[in-house]
Amino acid sequence: MRFIMTATTAKPHPGTNRKFVLAARPVGMPKESDFELVSEPLPPLKDGQILLRTQYLSVDPYMRGRMTGVRSYADPVNIGQLMVGGTVGEVIESRNSAFVAGQIVVGFWGWQEFAVSDGSGLRPLDPNLAPPSTALGVLGMPGMTAYFGFLEICQPKAGEIVVVSGAAGAVGSLVGQVAKIKGCKVVGIAGSDEKVAWLKDELGFDAAFNYKTTSDFVVRLQQLCPNGVDCYFDNVGGAVSDAMLSVINTKARIAICGQVSQYNLAKPEPGPRVFRYLLTKSARAEGFLVYNFAERFPEGVAQMAKWMKEGKIKYRETIVEGFENAPRALIGVLSGDNTGKMIVQMC
Amino acid sequence: MRFIMTATTAKPHPGTNRKFVLAARPVGMPKESDFELVSEPLPPLKDGQILLRTQYLSVDPYMRGRMTGVRSYADPVNIGQLMVGGTVGEVIESRNSAFVAGQIVVGFWGWQEFAVSDGSGLRPLDPNLAPPSTALGVLGMPGMTAYFGFLEICQPKAGEIVVVSGAAGAVGSLVGQVAKIKGCKVVGIAGSDEKVAWLKDELGFDAAFNYKTTSDFVVRLQQLCPNGVDCYFDNVGGAVSDAMLSVINTKARIAICGQVSQYNLAKPEPGPRVFRYLLTKSARAEGFLVYNFAERFPEGVAQMAKWMKEGKIKYRETIVEGFENAPRALIGVLSGDNTGKMIVQMC
Repeated sequence: MRFIMTATTAKPHPGTNRKFVLAARPVGMPKESDFELVSEPLPPLKDGQILLRTQYLSVDPYMRGRMTGVRSYADPVNIGQLMVGGTVGEVIESRNSAFVAGQIVVGFWGWQEFAVSDGSGLRPLDPNLAPPSTALGVLGMPGMTAYFGFLEICQPKAGEIVVVSGAAGAVGSLVGQVAKIKGCKVVGIAGSDEKVAWLKDELGFDAAFNYKTTSDFVVRLQQLCPNGVDCYFDNVGGAVSDAMLSVINTKARIAICGQVSQYNLAKPEPGPRVFRYLLTKSARAEGFLVYNFAERFPEGVAQMAKWMKEGKIKYRETIVEGFENAPRALIGVLSGDNTGKMIVQMC
Repeated sequence: MRFIMTATTAKPHPGTNRKFVLAARPVGMPKESDFELVSEPLPPLKDGQILLRTQYLSVDPYMRGRMTGVRSYADPVNIGQLMVGGTVGEVIESRNSAFVAGQIVVGFWGWQEFAVSDGSGLRPLDPNLAPPSTALGVLGMPGMTAYFGFLEICQPKAGEIVVVSGAAGAVGSLVGQVAKIKGCKVVGIAGSDEKVAWLKDELGFDAAFNYKTTSDFVVRLQQLCPNGVDCYFDNVGGAVSDAMLSVINTKARIAICGQVSQYNLAKPEPGPRVFRYLLTKSARAEGFLVYNFAERFPEGVAQMAKWMKEGKIKYRETIVEGFENAPRALIGVLSGDNTGKMIVQMC
């Protein structure tokens, strides 16, 4: 948990904006040189517009996909274009009657210090209800991903065995806690002993293991899940998910949320054929995007906020300070440097 | 369509039964020497028992799995044990008040000329309503597999694009016709030009192609499905299913019914990782067994019979004559020799 003091003193209109644009399509893991920080003049506001000063940038694994020149579920970011991403910031000037200076809003204006907006896609936040940065995490996209992805795709029942990969990440850490609330037994897979300890000691996971120091995932999973696995919430893919196929129960449900182990591969790697495992177990594997559930976000935010208030959902943020460090933060989230939600705090 | 004359004249109790037992676990494609035809005395009936004379044996791809010494969803057939399988036959003697001599019943008494039964698991057939062999095909396990597997797992909507692999088989040929009834556009994948012609000219598939003479499945699928694929009903797996992953639409549903291309592999072959395709398309792949829907079989049989009567569902049987040829028939079904349902007719 982390509390934030927000200064809402009016500041003069800045003349210049700085933003990160894509300088090169990454080969493998992105490098800082794949981004370029450019300056541009900030035009005066027109009627209906507001000026936003960014306070927090969200940094998420999906961004790697947008840097590739291939359309998947969304258009790619092209060379020279602004890096996309969720943002929280302050309205510092308003010529739009729906907004007043000093308001804190969440939106998707990307990696820039300021943004001119007509207000569409912005949601005002009440800093007294929850720290504004949570709008990028537990009460934002990752929280909704965990809530709807797990409950709707996995359809968990009390007493079932749930395994989460990428369990210490922004989404995985919430999935495990929602699973505990629903009466499941939860096993997490993460990339460090510290993360494993956090999952078990603070978040209430029943078990967890460090995949980086585990030689045989199948054996480890069989030890921790002697009765098999009913739900698998997958953030990573690759060898961890291969192993899961050997331990799923009849009518298991696999929610495919992310495949971060695959994003930086120069070419797709082969794996064991999945369909035969699904066939013999009458099991289901389903991919989803959080935006499939966009109409129900108010319900999800309300429920997650209630659980937070009741102490049933905890969250952690890994804060990287300084706009200049945004590329490094993204490289970090793709390397598993974060525990919980990775956020860039503007200085 | 095929009509059968049934002789119900009482015959003397035979003294000897002949049955096929598993002689060796197959390596790769089964060989005839993996089976042994053995004779055994047939005991006199006890109270409550009936004696059955087999008329038809069902021969199905799933049987290959039972010959492997590994438990998947069902126990394997052990060396020296009777080969399992669906059967149609005549009650030739009854000491059970629920059955009378001359009745035709469908059951699961395996590869043998006669069977002593207490009647459990048997369903009487009315030969005036439909040829008894259809109880092993369109009105039996393959019919229910097509009906429930396609409708429940694929959840097709009118106007959607459906692709069926193994399209000229017992299940696939019915799936395509059910899809047409539901208003879908249907493309079949089969293993000969004759099968392709049958699918298009007789069964009303919108398109079909011969995978054995097609060099690039993705290109062919893109030609035939320029708007992508919404439902894929998979009987074969392997390279055909790999190609499908490149052409599925957002929210596509893949029903995994069989993976016959994989059953005879000495060791599992790798393939492209599937999860990332499912993720970017919010798509679902789900395995199923027809017995998951056992409670609803009466509904399925009634609907398929109605469609048959209305001429909306056609079927074909590939009949192998002679009990001794049952192993050859199974090898044939695993090699794609059949069009429609493969059946062994006892002589």
